[in-house]
Amino acid sequence: MTATSLFDPSGIAVVGASKTEGKIGYEAMQNTAAFDGPVYPVNPSTSGTVCGRQFVSSVTEIDGDCDLALLCVPAQVVPDVIEECGDADIGAAVVFAGGFAEAGPDGEQLQDRLEAAAAEGDVSVLGPNTSGFLVPSAELYATFATDVEYVPPGNVAIVAQSGGLAYSLAFHAENEGRGVSAMVGLGNRATVSFEEALEYFDSDSETDAIMIHVEGTDDARGLLETCRAIETPVVAYNVGEQDVGDFAESHTGALTGSYELYEAGFAQYGVPTVRSVSELLDAGTALATCPEPDGPNVGVVTAQAGPGIAITDRLKRTGATLPSLSAATQDVVEEILPGITFSANPVDTGRPMPEFGDVVSAVARDDNIDIVLVYELYEAALGYPTDALEELVTTVDKPIVFGTAGPKSVIDDEVAELEALGVPTYRTPERAADAIGALVQYAKRNCQPDAMGADEEVTADD
Amino acid sequence: MTATSLFDPSGIAVVGASKTEGKIGYEAMQNTAAFDGPVYPVNPSTSGTVCGRQFVSSVTEIDGDCDLALLCVPAQVVPDVIEECGDADIGAAVVFAGGFAEAGPDGEQLQDRLEAAAAEGDVSVLGPNTSGFLVPSAELYATFATDVEYVPPGNVAIVAQSGGLAYSLAFHAENEGRGVSAMVGLGNRATVSFEEALEYFDSDSETDAIMIHVEGTDDARGLLETCRAIETPVVAYNVGEQDVGDFAESHTGALTGSYELYEAGFAQYGVPTVRSVSELLDAGTALATCPEPDGPNVGVVTAQAGPGIAITDRLKRTGATLPSLSAATQDVVEEILPGITFSANPVDTGRPMPEFGDVVSAVARDDNIDIVLVYELYEAALGYPTDALEELVTTVDKPIVFGTAGPKSVIDDEVAELEALGVPTYRTPERAADAIGALVQYAKRNCQPDAMGADEEVTADD
Repeated sequence: MTATSLFDPSGIAVVGASKTEGKIGYEAMQNTAAFDGPVYPVNPSTSGTVCGRQFVSSVTEIDGDCDLALLCVPAQVVPDVIEECGDADIGAAVVFAGGFAEAGPDGEQLQDRLEAAAAEGDVSVLGPNTSGFLVPSAELYATFATDVEYVPPGNVAIVAQSGGLAYSLAFHAENEGRGVSAMVGLGNRATVSFEEALEYFDSDSETDAIMIHVEGTDDARGLLETCRAIETPVVAYNVGEQDVGDFAESHTGALTGSYELYEAGFAQYGVPTVRSVSELLDAGTALATCPEPDGPNVGVVTAQAGPGIAITDRLKRTGATLPSLSAATQDVVEEILPGITFSANPVDTGRPMPEFGDVVSAVARDDNIDIVLVYELYEAALGYPTDALEELVTTVDKPIVFGTAGPKSVIDDEVAELEALGVPTYRTPERAADAIGALVQYAKRNCQPDAMGADEEVTADD
Repeated sequence: MTATSLFDPSGIAVVGASKTEGKIGYEAMQNTAAFDGPVYPVNPSTSGTVCGRQFVSSVTEIDGDCDLALLCVPAQVVPDVIEECGDADIGAAVVFAGGFAEAGPDGEQLQDRLEAAAAEGDVSVLGPNTSGFLVPSAELYATFATDVEYVPPGNVAIVAQSGGLAYSLAFHAENEGRGVSAMVGLGNRATVSFEEALEYFDSDSETDAIMIHVEGTDDARGLLETCRAIETPVVAYNVGEQDVGDFAESHTGALTGSYELYEAGFAQYGVPTVRSVSELLDAGTALATCPEPDGPNVGVVTAQAGPGIAITDRLKRTGATLPSLSAATQDVVEEILPGITFSANPVDTGRPMPEFGDVVSAVARDDNIDIVLVYELYEAALGYPTDALEELVTTVDKPIVFGTAGPKSVIDDEVAELEALGVPTYRTPERAADAIGALVQYAKRNCQPDAMGADEEVTADD
């Protein structure tokens, strides 16, 4: 796969490397400091060293392993450098410069030349007009952005049409104590687009779910078919419900307006869609963490009615169904908690209590239930039903999502224990409900008797 | 105002106080430890002391200042204790027990008796079926819930129909590094309902905005009229869009189903509505922090196009308008940034840059603009345009909301500086846009030529 040169390179050339702080050729060099492989600063007009590496005058002069070039050069010279990359057998390049297809006729012509050179030399090009990508577990930071080393490794990949949005999401993850397996800003998608990135991360052992950001592309069919074809769950943040056409076109050279097409296609293929960076991370976390749900039937167990009602309201809006628990389960619940407030579904225990975990277990084992949502305000004397959940996750193959609230310094450690069990935990009722919503949408992927037969309904503009 | 006895008492009786850890009469005593006034444990069957205070046998035996009683007793004896509170001139009581109007005919009868006793003795009753209230700045924790002392003081009040939801929101605020002026769970609203609480916190100097949670009440008109009458901005989380009737009725004895009525009423009276605990806090923060906006016209300045497009999309959905900047402003912007990517509105500077603050200033001073949203991914070398914003907030009386992302440990201090200026700051693009959405909805309050004349359109079920 050619994307391997890009995302798992053996050596890196930084073309336009610089000794001048603040220049992107300087920042990109700094970001390669921790990379486990050779790095070559390339600049015909500079000699000596930067970051302890010797300058070379051209990628064709590199003596050693190198299959990725980071182009920190002005737009006008990019096609020529891509040609040289082809000559030097460098299989992949990242082009940071803007001024291509997003910038009017002259830029379009320049992007055509870039693409021709890439095709001729067999170079996979990420960008142009991108801030690059990160693979935190490999300390691979192919970008000029600063502070990127703060983004921790994790098991969800970000594949965003916009580099800026990719960073918003990556730092949001970091702020939430989460990490990413990779973060990619596609930019103008000269040769590397959603398909190539999705296929690569589908085969990546570190990636358990992929979060994509779509601003509208001219290849909806390719993206939708790839989402359907790969094994790894995908969740999509599709921007452009409202008219943002002019502004979007000035950005990554893509027209929005295909919003409804994407929404219909994602729904048809069981790709959950979300409405914000925060929901994207929450849904990606649930998809990466939980076993695949068998259906859309959610059982809710709450220790407090108010958050439980908010959850039920929100869940119903996502398309989840809340079936009645079986008579047998209701009997068990009422035996554990005589005089229980509400035992149909949601089960409302009225307060946290020592038997709370037993109630959760009973609901999780009910055949009517595919997915379990548990909500409990933290009470110091009781803690969370961690033991019951540990037993459950080893014996019941269903997603279990936890919602809670409590003082941060008090609950952080216990929440981490729940997450380590594979129980994604959210700090507001609605975030837990929305994460379940993504699992419900994803479950529909498996409920279609013959998804292939539904092809005609998506009319892509490719 | 009778609510003063409740929320600003001179002395507190804990009826049903207990020496037994885990009992609510024990936890309520613990929570009064820091209260700046006399506290009286009341229990006819216990002697000695708890928390260093001497038990008394009845509220009528209290010798000293006492105008608030916390009732940690079973439902059946509550009416009698309320009667005794009346006899003892205790002006307010909190009733924690459930088993009243929410629990069928017998409970309704019990609540009738409670209300009769409260009316007879002129006692303001919060609850029954509530977890109480907090006033963190006074270290007043009138509740049996634990860990409540972690909730910091702040300038927004929570008035929630559900105590559980009130705690979810209060701890969410704490997790976000924010605080509250008060947190109130109304429960069954025997005598203290939204009106009484809203009027009290309207007159409270610590409260700059009020966040309410509504599950449906039988007095929609009273709530709506109060929201309109008071000066302090209110934002509402109205639950029950979907059918959650049975479950909700089992909760605080209220029927949902009035969802649409409330939505229409809130919209008519310029009360912003939100869809989650997280949005409620974000909107409350903006309303409490920012000057009152003159209209719905938003100017967006972004350093990155991707988040800017997401913001524009989201803003338009909230009903905000993004007018073109004046020709003069566009000239200024283009002079500062020749060849700027997009200068109409949003203004997209393409990257953070030293002149970023000047661009923000130009947009904020444009007469076409009522509210400013600034988005900028953090760059260490540049920081935030704090100086420009400081100058702006002292010279331009418009809301300025900031959105950003960056490593938590790196940006926390600088974000705190922005917030100290009165610039509420959010860590995802959509949260910033949604906060603006609340300001836009609130601005409509002032755009109605004669709000009083529109009365007929709200048909309340009272």
